[in-house]
Amino acid sequence: MSYFGEHFWGEKNHGFEVLYHSVKQGPISTKELADFIRERATIEETYSKAMAKLSKLASNGTPMGTFAPLWEVFRVSSDKLALCHLELTRKLQDLIKDVLRYGEEQLKTHKKCKEEVVGTLDAVQVLSGVSQLLPKSRENYLNRCMDQERLRRESTSQKEMDKAETKTKKAAESLRRSVEKYNSARADFEQKMLDSALRFQAMEETHLRHMKALLGSY
Amino acid sequence: MSYFGEHFWGEKNHGFEVLYHSVKQGPISTKELADFIRERATIEETYSKAMAKLSKLASNGTPMGTFAPLWEVFRVSSDKLALCHLELTRKLQDLIKDVLRYGEEQLKTHKKCKEEVVGTLDAVQVLSGVSQLLPKSRENYLNRCMDQERLRRESTSQKEMDKAETKTKKAAESLRRSVEKYNSARADFEQKMLDSALRFQAMEETHLRHMKALLGSY
Repeated sequence: MSYFGEHFWGEKNHGFEVLYHSVKQGPISTKELADFIRERATIEETYSKAMAKLSKLASNGTPMGTFAPLWEVFRVSSDKLALCHLELTRKLQDLIKDVLRYGEEQLKTHKKCKEEVVGTLDAVQVLSGVSQLLPKSRENYLNRCMDQERLRRESTSQKEMDKAETKTKKAAESLRRSVEKYNSARADFEQKMLDSALRFQAMEETHLRHMKALLGSY
Repeated sequence: MSYFGEHFWGEKNHGFEVLYHSVKQGPISTKELADFIRERATIEETYSKAMAKLSKLASNGTPMGTFAPLWEVFRVSSDKLALCHLELTRKLQDLIKDVLRYGEEQLKTHKKCKEEVVGTLDAVQVLSGVSQLLPKSRENYLNRCMDQERLRRESTSQKEMDKAETKTKKAAESLRRSVEKYNSARADFEQKMLDSALRFQAMEETHLRHMKALLGSY
């Protein structure tokens, strides 16, 4: 079996959004399924009613002549067809109720899920911010190092050299903090992303299992 | 097997009328059958079109999310159902054509038959007339005999007796002719009735065989 947690890290960490968007389709599918089954139920009901009408036509067949007994056969067969499709209609109507009930539960689950995964969304944004900061800090530090090196070659005064060294140290400290922030954000993101991936996968599995069970009666 | 010629002689020789009336229902049954099949074809066509519409609904299902591939299944299954009922519609439409074609042939056969059995109808009427005449002739003859007997007891004149005898002879002759007429009409009727019964039976058998063959494709 394949797991959401093994995939969907995605370029620029967009995997979360992809997964979340996919999971959000669940209730839409459920609603569409209910609409689909409702349409089918209407079709079956129309057919059943038409068959019942046809059965009446058969029972109005002329009772004279040698062909007359055949009308009874037509009447019975039309009645049976009407009944079959009426039963199907009723089953489908029950199924719609089940689907709608499931749809309501699903919406609750999704609301709860949305609250629970909001932390992951934050982690994605924090990581994104830190990721942009890191190269800037690195560049700043490198520039300071080059400045210091240039001053040394130009035999600048000790005072100027000290100033430059202080700046370099500050830049180094800033870079160190950025790296720490990035590592921490990355770890946080990975943990939360794994959690969310597991949660989404569980939801999708439950969803599909539910839909499959519902479709068993279609 | 039972034969029309063994039954349907009927009280007051009405069997012919009964048979003829029954045979006349043939074209009515054929027309009613065509109407019935036409109605059925319309029902199937409506169902097929509705299924095709349902298939479109399925192909409009959201293409996002894990449930999406199921819509393809719904689309295909709805398409298949639509196609099945469309094929049934076409078969029924072909069947209607066959039934209508048979109906036309049948009308021709019935027209020809009507011309051919008109002799039987005449024979029935002749026999009916003669049958009413016979008891009257018999009664007349008996009355004449009783008159003659009475005159003899009353010792009436020879002249009166001769008159009465002439009357009795005339009545006897009239009764004899009536009996002859009745026997001849009866023989003619029996022969023609047998012919017609055979013809009607053949027509009904052909009719039912035809209808059965047509219904084989229903």
